[in-house]
Amino acid sequence: MKSNLFITFEGPEGAGKTTVLNIIIERLKQQNVDVLGTREPGGIEIAEKIREVILNPAHTAMDERTEALLYAAARSQHFFEKVEPALNMGKLVLCDRFIDSSLAYQGYARGIGIDEVLAINEFAIGKRMPDKTFYFDLEPAVGLARIHAHNEREVNRLDNESLLFHEHVRKGYYEVIKRYPDRIQIINADQPMEKVVEDAWAILSELLEK
Amino acid sequence: MKSNLFITFEGPEGAGKTTVLNIIIERLKQQNVDVLGTREPGGIEIAEKIREVILNPAHTAMDERTEALLYAAARSQHFFEKVEPALNMGKLVLCDRFIDSSLAYQGYARGIGIDEVLAINEFAIGKRMPDKTFYFDLEPAVGLARIHAHNEREVNRLDNESLLFHEHVRKGYYEVIKRYPDRIQIINADQPMEKVVEDAWAILSELLEK
Repeated sequence: MKSNLFITFEGPEGAGKTTVLNIIIERLKQQNVDVLGTREPGGIEIAEKIREVILNPAHTAMDERTEALLYAAARSQHFFEKVEPALNMGKLVLCDRFIDSSLAYQGYARGIGIDEVLAINEFAIGKRMPDKTFYFDLEPAVGLARIHAHNEREVNRLDNESLLFHEHVRKGYYEVIKRYPDRIQIINADQPMEKVVEDAWAILSELLEK
Repeated sequence: MKSNLFITFEGPEGAGKTTVLNIIIERLKQQNVDVLGTREPGGIEIAEKIREVILNPAHTAMDERTEALLYAAARSQHFFEKVEPALNMGKLVLCDRFIDSSLAYQGYARGIGIDEVLAINEFAIGKRMPDKTFYFDLEPAVGLARIHAHNEREVNRLDNESLLFHEHVRKGYYEVIKRYPDRIQIINADQPMEKVVEDAWAILSELLEK
């Protein structure tokens, strides 16, 4: 069985990727697979401090390029301090969001440019792209409605502006998939959770058996 | 008289560039030139917070690519929040260290590569390079000895390893000058301070009269 693969989970808000990832990790552990589940900043102190700067609500004047560089910086530290050592120890690593989130959200939806955001992220991770990426695809309106239902917030907080932004994010992901058709596997997230888990599990099992 | 020029001061440790910059700023103010003297992070809160992450002594495990991205992030915020608005108001801006420091220190001396560090810094500042750069050139041993004499530290703290690093930095600056021979003006900093100031002042005066 092939181990030390680096697999990332991507998708819009509310696509269920975090839930699927957690269920799959539990199942892998029951099968005694040596797996690490993580997400940035992932408890890595330097990456956590960087994320604090990004998320500080007082930093309303943050330039979007500064923000993109900070995400890349946190990615670099999390990758070299946590992901790469785990891969070197032969672990399977599943990471909730990685480079493609920056390409879709900042490169495409925020309008900085996919090529430009790719360049700083390739700098960050030394061109070490994921071996495989699961993209959980869903209409943004469905995903946002799921989040709001789950959080028991009123649906009218889903305003047109944020829906439009999330539609841009999805278009951004489609652009990214065009660039990496072999790496990125699309999973239909507009199904019952059990079915989404089984679809992801089937692809993962095949990968691990190679 | 031409105003709103963006001029940067560069050089190894101990070359006296900060002292020269302060003297020149005072002289310009006496001549009623609308000038801003600055250096990163320059009191810009987001940039200050980023610098705190870089300089935190507990962060010994910081990856060198993370560090380079953080410097670029602080540069972006300082540039767009402080430098660019001043230039747009017609001010002359003198900045103590800028992109060339990253190219020489991190790109060359730390071995990441000048091209790679240039790419993330061009991302940071939107390819807005300085109009002119004064490079204060000095043997690293002379510069370090100056610092140690000034700080009344013992000269034996100037160990071979740090001297070697600073010699790499100087070589890095020479590589950068080869790329930008028109932009970067070399000033001999191995002269009495008054003479260094006069050399810099002569070049600046000519620039401002154009």
